[in-house]
Amino acid sequence: MSTFKITVAYDGTDFVGWQRQASGISIQSLLEGALRDLDQRDVSVAGAGRTDAGVHALGQVASFSLQRSIEPTVLTRALNARLPSAVRVVDAERAADTFHARFDAICKIYRYRIWNAEVLSPFERAYAWHVRGPLDAGAMHDAAALIAGRRDFAAFQAAGSSTTSTQRELFSSLVLRQAQHERGGSTLALSLSKGESLIVYDVAGSGFLRHMIRNIVGSLVEIGRGRRPVEWMTQVLEGRARALAGPTAPPHGLVLMAVAYGLQSP
Amino acid sequence: MSTFKITVAYDGTDFVGWQRQASGISIQSLLEGALRDLDQRDVSVAGAGRTDAGVHALGQVASFSLQRSIEPTVLTRALNARLPSAVRVVDAERAADTFHARFDAICKIYRYRIWNAEVLSPFERAYAWHVRGPLDAGAMHDAAALIAGRRDFAAFQAAGSSTTSTQRELFSSLVLRQAQHERGGSTLALSLSKGESLIVYDVAGSGFLRHMIRNIVGSLVEIGRGRRPVEWMTQVLEGRARALAGPTAPPHGLVLMAVAYGLQSP
Repeated sequence: MSTFKITVAYDGTDFVGWQRQASGISIQSLLEGALRDLDQRDVSVAGAGRTDAGVHALGQVASFSLQRSIEPTVLTRALNARLPSAVRVVDAERAADTFHARFDAICKIYRYRIWNAEVLSPFERAYAWHVRGPLDAGAMHDAAALIAGRRDFAAFQAAGSSTTSTQRELFSSLVLRQAQHERGGSTLALSLSKGESLIVYDVAGSGFLRHMIRNIVGSLVEIGRGRRPVEWMTQVLEGRARALAGPTAPPHGLVLMAVAYGLQSP
Repeated sequence: MSTFKITVAYDGTDFVGWQRQASGISIQSLLEGALRDLDQRDVSVAGAGRTDAGVHALGQVASFSLQRSIEPTVLTRALNARLPSAVRVVDAERAADTFHARFDAICKIYRYRIWNAEVLSPFERAYAWHVRGPLDAGAMHDAAALIAGRRDFAAFQAAGSSTTSTQRELFSSLVLRQAQHERGGSTLALSLSKGESLIVYDVAGSGFLRHMIRNIVGSLVEIGRGRRPVEWMTQVLEGRARALAGPTAPPHGLVLMAVAYGLQSP
C-alpha cells in the first residue's frame, strides 16, 4: 500500500460539493470512481475541506492509499483521463502512510469574491457574488480585522449545526478592493468596467464551521452597505447566536485556494 | 427615431455566434428579441464583428434605431433584464443617425488565449486553447511581428470564402507569455500552476477575414512548437493560399476585446 497526497482544482458549478451525497455528483465520488478503476478495488478519499455545492477550489488537498504501485506523474495523468474537465488533479506526491488530508491540515486558505458593479461580467457569473450599489470596502476591511485570532465563531455557524467546539483560529482576515484583473492580463489594458469592480475577502484559518465564511461575508456586506457600523462585527461575534449575523452569502463566490501542512507531513 | 451604440460582453460558449442563424441562439437574435419587446416592432441590430460560435466578447459594439424615446441607462437595464446572464450590455449611448457599428469601425482588437501547461485549469476550459508541450513564445512573437502592416491575408482566410478583397491592415500583432493572473488578483499570491501558463496573442486591425485570427494562431503555434522556423510566417503570407498555413485554432480561445471608432462617430 502507498499513500498519496493530491492537489485538486475544480469548477464547483455543476456539483453537489466535495462530499459524497445520496443524489448528484460530488468531487469525492468522482475521484473515488476514478481510483476504483485504477486500483481495481474501493478506495476511500479524504479531502481537507468539505466544500459546499457550487463552491470552487484551486487547491483542495486529498489523501488516499493504493494497492497498486504507481508513479505520481502517471497517477496525475491517469486520474485526469478519468475525470471531467471541470475537475483537474494539478499535483500528486507520495505521502507518509499516516498522512490524512483533513486531520493533518494546519491552515486552509479561502477567498470569497464579490463583483460590485451595476453590470455583472458574463465571465464572473459563476465565480462571484454580484452586489449592486456602493460597498465601503474600507469599512469591510476594518470589520474583517476585528474577527481575526482565536475565537468562538458560533455566531457564524449554520443554524442547526452540531459541533463539539465552535472555537477556531483565523490567522488572517482581509478585505481588499482590487483593480479588475482582466482575464490573463494584457498589454492592451482593456477591462469590462472602468472601476475596480472586484472585492475580495481572503481568509486563512485553522478550520471553519459550516457556512462560516459565507456567513462572515454576508455580515461584512451589511457593513459595506452602511446598514451596520464596523463595530457590529464584534457584537455579532460576541453574541454567539446565528440570528445576530447577516445573511449567508451564495456559495459560488467562494474558492478553496490552498491547504497548508506541517513540515513533517506528508 | 433615435440611434444607439451599445457595448456588449458575452460568454460565447452556448451560442452559435454573433450572427442570426437558421438554428441555434445567436447574440444578434437575443438582442433583436429584447429590442422587439422594448420597441414593439422589429429592430435590426448591426454588430461590429461577426464572432464565430464559441468566440467571446468583452467589447463587441452594436448599433440600432428605436422609435421609442429612452434614456441610455434605462435602455441598458431594460436590455439586461431581457437577456441571459451570459450576455451583458455594459454600456449604451446615443449615436448619430448615420452611425453603423460595422461600417464606421476603424479598428477591432482581438485577443487569442493559449493555455500552455500539462494540466488545463478548470476555470480556463471554455476560454483558452489547451496546448501541451513546450511552446517558444519568443519565436511566436517574432513570427507575429512579420505579418503586421497592410497586407494580403488570403493565406489566412477560411477555405471557400468569397471576399472582394483580401487586403487588411494589422496595426499591431503581438505574442506574449504572461505571468498567470490568478482570478481577481490576490494578496496571497497563489496560482494553479507555478509557471507562466498563459500565452496571449493580441491583434488590432482594420478588419479580419473569416477565421483569419484563428488561422494565424494555428500557424504561430506550429512555429512555437518548433515544427517551422519564424520566417515560415512570411512564406505562408506571401504564398496567399490557405493550404500553406497551419491548422485553424479552436474558437473558444478568441475574445473580441474592443472596437474603436473615429472621433466624429458616434
